[in-house]
Amino acid sequence: MAAATVTLARRIARSGVLFPRSSPQVWGQASRQPPGLLSTQHRAFSNKKILVELDTSSGVATMKFKSPPVNSLSLDFLTEFCISLEKLENDRACRGLIITSTIPRVFSSGLDIMEMCGKSTEHYAEFWRAVQEMWLRLYGSNMVTVAAINGSSPAGGCLIALSCDYRIMVENPKYVIGLNEAQLGIVAPFWFKDTFVNAVGHRVAERSLQLGLLHSVPEAHQIGLVDEVVPEEKLQDKAVAVVAQWLALPDHARQLTKSMMRKAVLDHMLAHREEDIQNFVNFISKDSIQKSLSMYMEMLKKKKS
Amino acid sequence: MAAATVTLARRIARSGVLFPRSSPQVWGQASRQPPGLLSTQHRAFSNKKILVELDTSSGVATMKFKSPPVNSLSLDFLTEFCISLEKLENDRACRGLIITSTIPRVFSSGLDIMEMCGKSTEHYAEFWRAVQEMWLRLYGSNMVTVAAINGSSPAGGCLIALSCDYRIMVENPKYVIGLNEAQLGIVAPFWFKDTFVNAVGHRVAERSLQLGLLHSVPEAHQIGLVDEVVPEEKLQDKAVAVVAQWLALPDHARQLTKSMMRKAVLDHMLAHREEDIQNFVNFISKDSIQKSLSMYMEMLKKKKS
Amino acid sequence: MAAATVTLARRIARSGVLFPRSSPQVWGQASRQPPGLLSTQHRAFSNKKILVELDTSSGVATMKFKSPPVNSLSLDFLTEFCISLEKLENDRACRGLIITSTIPRVFSSGLDIMEMCGKSTEHYAEFWRAVQEMWLRLYGSNMVTVAAINGSSPAGGCLIALSCDYRIMVENPKYVIGLNEAQLGIVAPFWFKDTFVNAVGHRVAERSLQLGLLHSVPEAHQIGLVDEVVPEEKLQDKAVAVVAQWLALPDHARQLTKSMMRKAVLDHMLAHREEDIQNFVNFISKDSIQKSLSMYMEMLKKKKS
Repeated sequence: MAAATVTLARRIARSGVLFPRSSPQVWGQASRQPPGLLSTQHRAFSNKKILVELDTSSGVATMKFKSPPVNSLSLDFLTEFCISLEKLENDRACRGLIITSTIPRVFSSGLDIMEMCGKSTEHYAEFWRAVQEMWLRLYGSNMVTVAAINGSSPAGGCLIALSCDYRIMVENPKYVIGLNEAQLGIVAPFWFKDTFVNAVGHRVAERSLQLGLLHSVPEAHQIGLVDEVVPEEKLQDKAVAVVAQWLALPDHARQLTKSMMRKAVLDHMLAHREEDIQNFVNFISKDSIQKSLSMYMEMLKKKKS
Repeated sequence: MAAATVTLARRIARSGVLFPRSSPQVWGQASRQPPGLLSTQHRAFSNKKILVELDTSSGVATMKFKSPPVNSLSLDFLTEFCISLEKLENDRACRGLIITSTIPRVFSSGLDIMEMCGKSTEHYAEFWRAVQEMWLRLYGSNMVTVAAINGSSPAGGCLIALSCDYRIMVENPKYVIGLNEAQLGIVAPFWFKDTFVNAVGHRVAERSLQLGLLHSVPEAHQIGLVDEVVPEEKLQDKAVAVVAQWLALPDHARQLTKSMMRKAVLDHMLAHREEDIQNFVNFISKDSIQKSLSMYMEMLKKKKS
Repeated sequence: MAAATVTLARRIARSGVLFPRSSPQVWGQASRQPPGLLSTQHRAFSNKKILVELDTSSGVATMKFKSPPVNSLSLDFLTEFCISLEKLENDRACRGLIITSTIPRVFSSGLDIMEMCGKSTEHYAEFWRAVQEMWLRLYGSNMVTVAAINGSSPAGGCLIALSCDYRIMVENPKYVIGLNEAQLGIVAPFWFKDTFVNAVGHRVAERSLQLGLLHSVPEAHQIGLVDEVVPEEKLQDKAVAVVAQWLALPDHARQLTKSMMRKAVLDHMLAHREEDIQNFVNFISKDSIQKSLSMYMEMLKKKKS
């Protein structure tokens, strides 16, 4: 993961984030002060695309995606996401994380197609490494992670939800969730697939991935893609209650158990990480793929206007 | 797979099929002509045991098993099956395949016990290689494959259904489906088991295989062994609709996704193919097994008369 | 498994059990006499903690845990259990096994915490090897094994049930079952996890293990942790009927099928057995773990008084 760290560090420097890895983590340090010294029980931390709020009394942080129009996972978004995850992971005051969206009707639209279209192979490689890094940090997080899915969540958005410990989705006939890569003429990488299979089993995954299905909320619930469905107004309370339930367990035992359950899939990806980047770069650089992504983007633009 | 190809080529020559691999594929070539040059939208291709019809307008072929009394998988049947699969696979006009039966009340009764009883070890080996070849081609097919199961489907018949992308079964209280090898005193090979586990999960497979269960249609539906149940008169339309749904996806993305889902199980078999043949030959040659198969055949004969 | 055998033999000698492995197995020999020579159809065999009854007419043995107060799996209990399993396994008159409890409201409370608290590392190692041995024998048994769960069954008690071929539980709102190790601040070993995943699938296992859930009977049924739920008075008859159903299959085919289904998980443990013992010893010897187990024992004592 050395290369990834270098890349992230470079991006941190580039994006002007305040807390690079090598310098003192001001925010992290604060959390290690005795509770009595803290002026408030809440600390907030906002970058451009994600708002992070930490309730130090409960030890639960909330990440709010706020990147219009659809919280797409651009390289900038992913970089912010990884940095925020790393900061929370290293912050002893933080034990749980709720991920949600401030954008109406969308949790996250998935990978930003702009990053995969008409760019250099170096850019594709850097982008893909950031996607991997996000998943590695979230799927392997020591924190209790709950996805509070308050909008549609296709492709990479679905992956974020799948990488959490628990998924709560708002009941709304317009919301959908799934790994719909095949619909765009591309293929979900093997570790998206592994994460999906771990949640819904082999048979459901086989059909859903081949058809690139976007499941309605009741269907997602029925196949086990989400764990619970609630009305919008109860989402936040439910997410807080679920995190509290999981935090009632001794951290160490829970973390070791989580690692035991997810290690095989994480290790498999790490063992093939560079190969996976190369595969992505080769695939996305193909004329046919570039053409079909361009057409898809045109279609999206027309839809808007 | 060289040995398998040689065996198949030899059998092709023996069975007098018109299109051996090394000579021009007349039927296949036709399909590469511009659509306008084709005199009809339908082409049919019939061997002794399987009728193949291709609708070139939709790109969907239908294979109809027509080998009385019960579509048992003899060496001749398997050879025809493999040849037909290979021809369709190589035919660009064909993207989807529906498999069904013309024999009342039976989809396929599974491996032909006659091929496993009182024959030479060479014959057992050739037979087993043909069973493997059939599964390798069907489970790994690039086509969209739908089993339209219009009758009972034990053992090898169930394997054919399991190897398709989607299974639709006719609702009929007399029809059953399952891997019932244990009932006959034999053991489903590991790749039958892997295919079964991929469809229904480990626990259901463990019980069903140990008890050699033949499931009723509602039960098969409930455990996920079949995906959908329809009245007989709606089977054909439903199968056509399902293939159309799957063909709406870009071929390349769908095929790569399918390969990703099935590769581990296919590779596992290929890595142990010769060993698996040897195991089968050793097992089936045992006096105790020969005796129990003979008794089973006697029982079947008495049932008939 | 040489070391394990030595350990078991030593314990057999120590516990004064009548039939050590190296001397003639009196009980086993009897079963190899022609049926006509047997004076009765029932033979019973009682150690201190487990009563074993064999119905030679049906070939079904029943093991009744009778170790007050809660059938906890002490080293003595495990040793008796392994010896009884070995004897039944080697007895041709015995083909099926029902495991149940004579203690009201408890099937088995799991590993005896006394064995893990304030003892030597040698003791921890011997204890853990006995836990492994029990699972290896039960999960890999050639007999048809049915758990007749007539009480709560946490942790190691749940493992015993999971290692059988079929689980029937008494419907009682007070009974619970699950791998609740995480609640005690410890971690279920990987082969507990593998056994659990084989029964309920990855997703259910991930949540249940991380939360250390003890499931109610309906919930256990719904997630597939138990196969069937019956009123207390029907438990025995149901267990007998289930064993009979499984014994109707040819032994050889059923046993090979069972082995095929469970081999991967058994082999995985065997390949890491010594490492697993070392991990357990290191983990359990930690001050923090010793402290939390002591506190848990104190709590249990207070509960009683």
